[in-house]
Amino acid sequence: MGTVAALASAKPTVLRVAAFSGSLRKDSWHTGLIHAAEELCEEFIPGLIIDHVDISNLPMANPDLETDGGDGFPPEVEAFRARVLAADCFLFASPEYNYSVTASLKNALDWASRGTVKCWADKAAAIVCAGYDFNGGRGSLHLRQIGIYLDIHFINKPELHVRMYDNPPSFDADGNLTDAKNRERLKKVLLSLQAFALRLQPKQA
Amino acid sequence: MGTVAALASAKPTVLRVAAFSGSLRKDSWHTGLIHAAEELCEEFIPGLIIDHVDISNLPMANPDLETDGGDGFPPEVEAFRARVLAADCFLFASPEYNYSVTASLKNALDWASRGTVKCWADKAAAIVCAGYDFNGGRGSLHLRQIGIYLDIHFINKPELHVRMYDNPPSFDADGNLTDAKNRERLKKVLLSLQAFALRLQPKQA
Amino acid sequence: MGTVAALASAKPTVLRVAAFSGSLRKDSWHTGLIHAAEELCEEFIPGLIIDHVDISNLPMANPDLETDGGDGFPPEVEAFRARVLAADCFLFASPEYNYSVTASLKNALDWASRGTVKCWADKAAAIVCAGYDFNGGRGSLHLRQIGIYLDIHFINKPELHVRMYDNPPSFDADGNLTDAKNRERLKKVLLSLQAFALRLQPKQA
Amino acid sequence: MGTVAALASAKPTVLRVAAFSGSLRKDSWHTGLIHAAEELCEEFIPGLIIDHVDISNLPMANPDLETDGGDGFPPEVEAFRARVLAADCFLFASPEYNYSVTASLKNALDWASRGTVKCWADKAAAIVCAGYDFNGGRGSLHLRQIGIYLDIHFINKPELHVRMYDNPPSFDADGNLTDAKNRERLKKVLLSLQAFALRLQPKQA
Repeated sequence: MGTVAALASAKPTVLRVAAFSGSLRKDSWHTGLIHAAEELCEEFIPGLIIDHVDISNLPMANPDLETDGGDGFPPEVEAFRARVLAADCFLFASPEYNYSVTASLKNALDWASRGTVKCWADKAAAIVCAGYDFNGGRGSLHLRQIGIYLDIHFINKPELHVRMYDNPPSFDADGNLTDAKNRERLKKVLLSLQAFALRLQPKQA
Repeated sequence: MGTVAALASAKPTVLRVAAFSGSLRKDSWHTGLIHAAEELCEEFIPGLIIDHVDISNLPMANPDLETDGGDGFPPEVEAFRARVLAADCFLFASPEYNYSVTASLKNALDWASRGTVKCWADKAAAIVCAGYDFNGGRGSLHLRQIGIYLDIHFINKPELHVRMYDNPPSFDADGNLTDAKNRERLKKVLLSLQAFALRLQPKQA
Repeated sequence: MGTVAALASAKPTVLRVAAFSGSLRKDSWHTGLIHAAEELCEEFIPGLIIDHVDISNLPMANPDLETDGGDGFPPEVEAFRARVLAADCFLFASPEYNYSVTASLKNALDWASRGTVKCWADKAAAIVCAGYDFNGGRGSLHLRQIGIYLDIHFINKPELHVRMYDNPPSFDADGNLTDAKNRERLKKVLLSLQAFALRLQPKQA
Repeated sequence: MGTVAALASAKPTVLRVAAFSGSLRKDSWHTGLIHAAEELCEEFIPGLIIDHVDISNLPMANPDLETDGGDGFPPEVEAFRARVLAADCFLFASPEYNYSVTASLKNALDWASRGTVKCWADKAAAIVCAGYDFNGGRGSLHLRQIGIYLDIHFINKPELHVRMYDNPPSFDADGNLTDAKNRERLKKVLLSLQAFALRLQPKQA
């Protein structure tokens, strides 16, 4: 290996993870999962930075709101799309509402799929969720199907579906992920996402 | 059979169909499908009345907006839920956005699923759609999975996915379903919905 | 109500439930679910009779094995199709293999779907399963999608996914469902299937 | 870069694609898609070699047939698993039977998923299909869900669903893909599979 390549490999690639909570609740467990991911990256995962993207202020997706032949969007949507486009990969904290994803998450996914610039395309992603019964897993499967058309590359393993039946509970009353075992599992999801995103990056000469 | 029962059976049951368009576009094909269903019922299908329910004014679903321990809702949501609850069965004109249902339709489905009163439960429904490629069929399959938890009984046949590739097009520029063959197919969907809803009704003594 | 109708309603309708285990294992939990359903019907549910249909001897589905222009089948397939056709409704004990149904169950579903006579069509059905993780639930969702084309009417509720993590286990070493709580839940599934199948039957004049 | 590495990179990586037809029919379109892929790779795609793996002789999957504590298999299964394990990536020609994959394909998927050695894991794959109506697309979506647990990385684009309604037909009477446009589309699928498989390979130092 030559000197230039050695220097290049000495500086680790920093990946920006745009992270989305599919719940609008103030004390949402899913927003808590994003916060825990932020903390875990800061503490343990050099090279991975969480960018928590708020999706609560987006108008309901409607092509009639688009201008410039489909490439102009309301200001909140433009700002949101820029954050998605700037990301290297994605983390979805996706609650299951009625066996599918939430309307607010679907709305965000749809807005960034419109127009000529494909904001989601060709990037790695991971899904985490929490819930009763199947722990949100059915919603994750819908999100994966949506991702086919968006051209998202989801990691397959590990899957993290936090069981809300557990006692003591994994989240505190403010929605913070306090359970050590699930924090460790979330860390493994993030490491898997990082590794997969790096594999997908162009190889250096 | 006694006299009262004989009179009852002489008067055909009138079924109210709450109908929803998953698109917010002004000239939406899917809203056009609802309009065509209204016309077809008036002209050809005694006993079936379409109640076109607008879903464009609903706020984004968020449990924090609920009051009264989960049984109070914003005024637009209360009005919407009352229309759903009053219906005997449902017609969904459901576009496919990114291989799934639209955010606006998911939002409506979620709002009427909350609280103690289950507005969708135990009623028959049909899905129609229009689109390129698979003509919207992948979104229909997601809607059917959502309906399991809502306890909706979807008809299986016939399925209507209007092909947008056809020439001449099935819709005019304002989104009206002008194609005779597809209007006939829509009529068959409505007749199948009517028959299934009647089968599901309690048997008379 | 006249005398003839009164007599008719005095004699309860007897429904024959064709029941299929998707597992070929000798000590299968899913075959155990079918056995438990047989016992529960005999003891507690007048009007519901389980016909346990073995699917282990069917050849792999292949249209080249069909004769008579697609309406002739190998002898084992003919016998299987006759059992399906004679049933009033269905019970599927469907294990999840790799997030979907088993090959042996899919094979049985496909064989009885071929030819002019649609053996599955327009009948009620219920799905039960047991498993780790999501307890087999992802496979159930695939089975429901398959059922759309077969024109099967699945009950939505209750769902029974027996958790294999529980301690003490719900099945004994021979695959018998010994847990009282899950037997009670299975009984409720059978009662719901019976009620739905009766609702779907033609109304008497 | 040193001399050895330079030589290594001068010799293009050759990827072995294990290819499976989900249909057992002699004149299957899906087997025709595999044959066309073989021809296209030989003629146009250096570095990609199709290994057409027959799945018609596998017994129906049944854990009771496994020996050695779950790591021994019937001889046909052992041979099949070795072919899967030796492959660098996969091509599935997957017909849609009743809105899902065929039993024979599911059977093959399940056999190679058993035991300690995960034959499918962490490899790229593409799905192609042909059909009426949605052209087989619903089956593809089930295959993708199965692949999550198997840890297969499917390419998202392009998708190839050959329309059987087209006139002239895309296949001849023996199941050969004769249509030039669809052969070109299949070539693009193969190039996308090759590129994705190469991206997923470990980076050289």
